[in-house]
Amino acid sequence: MLIGEVVGSVVSTRKDEQLESFKLLVVQVRDHSNQPKDQYVIAVDSVGAGTGDLVLYATGSSARQTLTTKDKPCDAVVMAIVDSWDVGGENVYEKWSS
Amino acid sequence: MLIGEVVGSVVSTRKDEQLESFKLLVVQVRDHSNQPKDQYVIAVDSVGAGTGDLVLYATGSSARQTLTTKDKPCDAVVMAIVDSWDVGGENVYEKWSS
Amino acid sequence: MLIGEVVGSVVSTRKDEQLESFKLLVVQVRDHSNQPKDQYVIAVDSVGAGTGDLVLYATGSSARQTLTTKDKPCDAVVMAIVDSWDVGGENVYEKWSS
Amino acid sequence: MLIGEVVGSVVSTRKDEQLESFKLLVVQVRDHSNQPKDQYVIAVDSVGAGTGDLVLYATGSSARQTLTTKDKPCDAVVMAIVDSWDVGGENVYEKWSS
Amino acid sequence: MLIGEVVGSVVSTRKDEQLESFKLLVVQVRDHSNQPKDQYVIAVDSVGAGTGDLVLYATGSSARQTLTTKDKPCDAVVMAIVDSWDVGGENVYEKWSS
Repeated sequence: MLIGEVVGSVVSTRKDEQLESFKLLVVQVRDHSNQPKDQYVIAVDSVGAGTGDLVLYATGSSARQTLTTKDKPCDAVVMAIVDSWDVGGENVYEKWSS
Repeated sequence: MLIGEVVGSVVSTRKDEQLESFKLLVVQVRDHSNQPKDQYVIAVDSVGAGTGDLVLYATGSSARQTLTTKDKPCDAVVMAIVDSWDVGGENVYEKWSS
Repeated sequence: MLIGEVVGSVVSTRKDEQLESFKLLVVQVRDHSNQPKDQYVIAVDSVGAGTGDLVLYATGSSARQTLTTKDKPCDAVVMAIVDSWDVGGENVYEKWSS
Repeated sequence: MLIGEVVGSVVSTRKDEQLESFKLLVVQVRDHSNQPKDQYVIAVDSVGAGTGDLVLYATGSSARQTLTTKDKPCDAVVMAIVDSWDVGGENVYEKWSS
Repeated sequence: MLIGEVVGSVVSTRKDEQLESFKLLVVQVRDHSNQPKDQYVIAVDSVGAGTGDLVLYATGSSARQTLTTKDKPCDAVVMAIVDSWDVGGENVYEKWSS
């Protein structure tokens, strides 16, 4: 999995019928210092994530292992919202920091 | 998934018989500012997309989860036409803008 | 899928027994201007492609969806020979051009 | 598979229910000289790895073939702790070196 | 598939039990001129390859289609030893050249 920030969304009315009701999020990838990378993915939301949330997303066939995405033509899914993230003994992100 | 623009098509008469009648689209990838990247993919159309459409495509085994592509040797499918796309609170693309 | 040119072949006698009789092609990837890239893949032939042919190849689990490659340890398959290819209204390749 | 070092962890309370109780490790990829690369992955632990361990991780559908991760929306798993690693006849890493 | 040279091996005692008895090879990727690239993969051996051998390896779910790797958490497998390799009408590698 990789970590990214939800930075937007995509609207589509003409799509594969199995995708009806999916929320399509634009997720910008973070590097391991929690800095935004020049890379994004469009992922289906399975946990109620919103703009500004840092999330974990899975890609490939693993993206079809949530209840929401099972057997759907979906290759990326947001399956967790990140609370905190530590690297090298340092806290690089804390959702509830004031 | 990633977003790209349909910029062309591929014609092939000698191909795996399971691919008969497939429309093969050349999709140029867009970055998250909706700028064209120097990257493309050949994807099977499952939604009636045409040249100039901005589309969502899925890759890998997920590309075989549409009715069109089930069990076919196809690793990329266009499964949605994008109406609009927001990033960072800005509308980066609007299909029906006049 | 991506488009590439068949530029060579690989010979192997000691291999997984399920690969017996496979023709292994060296495919050099083309960019969307039909220029050769500094990238290649070794793909199993399923359509009778030969040196100089422009071909479509699929990767990953989709490469096991042809009759030739079903359930084989093969992650890339040539499953179509390209006749012509259009990008941006221009014909970038025409097999039968004289 | 690739080799990386466990450099941190990720905490998430709101996640797909199938991910409950998973330990999520931040793994920084090593190159073949055992030098850290500017690349990481978040992987589920299946072998009791801890910070500082050099590990092997698998990605894609193969990441769902451990008892821990079977049928879970997980695309990367740590499935071995590296004891030693030789390249070109040289020992590039030895866990128990004093 | 890609071609690489077996340049080393990895030893691990603490690993997923399904990986017991696997030989883990360090494979350095070759480009299409048969020059070593700054890229490697750790692959399970299924053909008795040894250091110095040029090999073909498959990745992803296809890496689980050999008898050795079936249903194992393994995303790369060496499934052929290369005897010779031709590109552009030139022999770039010949195992038995004197």
